[in-house]
Amino acid sequence: MTTENGKRLQDIGEFGFIDRIRKGCVVRPRNVVRPIGDDAAVFTPDADRLTLVTTDLLVERVHFLKERISGEDLGAKSLAVNLSDIAAMGGEAREAFVSLAIPDSIAVTYLEAFYNGMKELAAAHAVNILGGDTTGSRSDLMIAVTVTGSVPPAELLRRDGARPGDVVFVTGWLGDSRAGLHWILEGTSDLQGEDRELVRAHRRPRPHLEEGRFLAAAGGVHGAIDVSDGASSDAAHVASESGVGMRLFGDRIPVSPALRNFCARNGHDPVRFALAGGEDYVLLCTVSASRAEDIARGFQNRFGRPLHRIGEVIADRRMELVRSPGTVEALHPEGWDHFKKKPSVGG
Amino acid sequence: MTTENGKRLQDIGEFGFIDRIRKGCVVRPRNVVRPIGDDAAVFTPDADRLTLVTTDLLVERVHFLKERISGEDLGAKSLAVNLSDIAAMGGEAREAFVSLAIPDSIAVTYLEAFYNGMKELAAAHAVNILGGDTTGSRSDLMIAVTVTGSVPPAELLRRDGARPGDVVFVTGWLGDSRAGLHWILEGTSDLQGEDRELVRAHRRPRPHLEEGRFLAAAGGVHGAIDVSDGASSDAAHVASESGVGMRLFGDRIPVSPALRNFCARNGHDPVRFALAGGEDYVLLCTVSASRAEDIARGFQNRFGRPLHRIGEVIADRRMELVRSPGTVEALHPEGWDHFKKKPSVGG
Repeated sequence: MTTENGKRLQDIGEFGFIDRIRKGCVVRPRNVVRPIGDDAAVFTPDADRLTLVTTDLLVERVHFLKERISGEDLGAKSLAVNLSDIAAMGGEAREAFVSLAIPDSIAVTYLEAFYNGMKELAAAHAVNILGGDTTGSRSDLMIAVTVTGSVPPAELLRRDGARPGDVVFVTGWLGDSRAGLHWILEGTSDLQGEDRELVRAHRRPRPHLEEGRFLAAAGGVHGAIDVSDGASSDAAHVASESGVGMRLFGDRIPVSPALRNFCARNGHDPVRFALAGGEDYVLLCTVSASRAEDIARGFQNRFGRPLHRIGEVIADRRMELVRSPGTVEALHPEGWDHFKKKPSVGG
Repeated sequence: MTTENGKRLQDIGEFGFIDRIRKGCVVRPRNVVRPIGDDAAVFTPDADRLTLVTTDLLVERVHFLKERISGEDLGAKSLAVNLSDIAAMGGEAREAFVSLAIPDSIAVTYLEAFYNGMKELAAAHAVNILGGDTTGSRSDLMIAVTVTGSVPPAELLRRDGARPGDVVFVTGWLGDSRAGLHWILEGTSDLQGEDRELVRAHRRPRPHLEEGRFLAAAGGVHGAIDVSDGASSDAAHVASESGVGMRLFGDRIPVSPALRNFCARNGHDPVRFALAGGEDYVLLCTVSASRAEDIARGFQNRFGRPLHRIGEVIADRRMELVRSPGTVEALHPEGWDHFKKKPSVGG
């Protein structure tokens, strides 16, 4: 007897599945001409704006273990990592396209939860899901999401505009996601409140779209990136693309109380841990010194939390970490390279 | 000793790889603001046009066997299937985004060949490759390609506009690709000229972008789709979306000389074989009867080959195949469903 819970895609077919997930995909119909169901999605572009497109792959056993992440969380996260890229360009997110390569073993209920998690996040940012592709996989589950966005030309944020003298900011705590991944890999089931927050930071990253729009519209932001590889690594990307260096201050790196406790219990240096991080999905940006104070104040007023001033841009093409006055260490990018070193798997 | 030929991605790293493939990705720089290298690609949309977006996944052992297809062919085909979707909407293809989940076992030379094949086809259609994502895979090679396009609003071709009385056309031969797949699965190495053509039809499908633009601009085309699942199945999609039926004529189904010989030798009914087909990547469209003759003549003049008139749209929501005057068979869609029946693997 096949129960709903035990149903696999081969029971309902590709078209049956598409019919099930179609509902709730269009939340901003005004500009949509053809949603899911034709050879391509069709929509009107935003007038007088630049188009943004980003795409990310999430692969089972490389980026996640499906036994350790719920369908809802996986769906939301697959979209969030793309929304974060749009945020880093100063854009508004517009349309999403979601492709899945699905092994036989996956239950339809897991996939429906995946789409529910994704749709909830999409709706929160007025993003339509307008298309995609579903197919079988003989091995792992693979998720490919593409998101389009738009931005007024004068407000585009880029990686390559940082200038010596700029102030370096981040829009939120660093390192929580990496600590959450630690607990996921440990498989610990009875986590306390604070550690649950760390796990949530890993599983449900919040894309900083509103923060990105605020920074883009504020004027004076010269360089920006979202922190996905790890803050030290992503800061180095901005520096390298801009032909400059950066000096970060250890006592300014924003470490959450939860992470501070985690590091104390596990013998980690919280500053190094937070800078290595990865999958934080906050924004790192460099701002003209003359605008820095205004922008930080405006950010605090708007979002009710600080824009963290973590360092400054220097002309020398090197990355430094100032641990205490007079104590300077080289800041080696400790990022993810999906081939050079094998990333750990995690939710 | 590591030779160039034996290099794997883990030897050169993700960023080393991206540096290698970046060259030749932008062939139409006019509207590009940021190509590969920032958080998202940035470009100016085409003024006064609708935006088209399509995305397709190709998964090893589901869609191809990498031992049986060259990197060049796989790269070109991965793009071609997306360009074909843009063609079916009457659009011009514009920007491409290419993501790969790459197992350790793949040689860098295979991946470079993949990008070379893709770039060659992209350049032929003035398509920029503006982004993507590369990551590891613990199992199969997976390819996710997204392509944007644009079309004047009045020229958009859709699946759902077919009307009773319309003439049904296809823009090229049907079934060759399926016959080519047969030879690929047989693993026959000493194919003759005609059979090589069939294999080439499978490995190097030509997207009918120019044909699609011709039809879109001609006026009077009511419904259109690209033939990817098989002509009978794709015709049924158009009929179903349009709320109509279709009557196809067996003696009008375009069968190439190569396929006719293939079917004679292998005991297949060429009409049924061609209609079941799959991966033909020609266009099927329905045209107002009053415009049909003009459009067919214009097509012949423009492309030097016929627009094949294969049937007509009927008001009854059923699919018929007329084998000879008075002999009518039901036309059951024999398409691919990537879950319901396991597709054969092939190049």
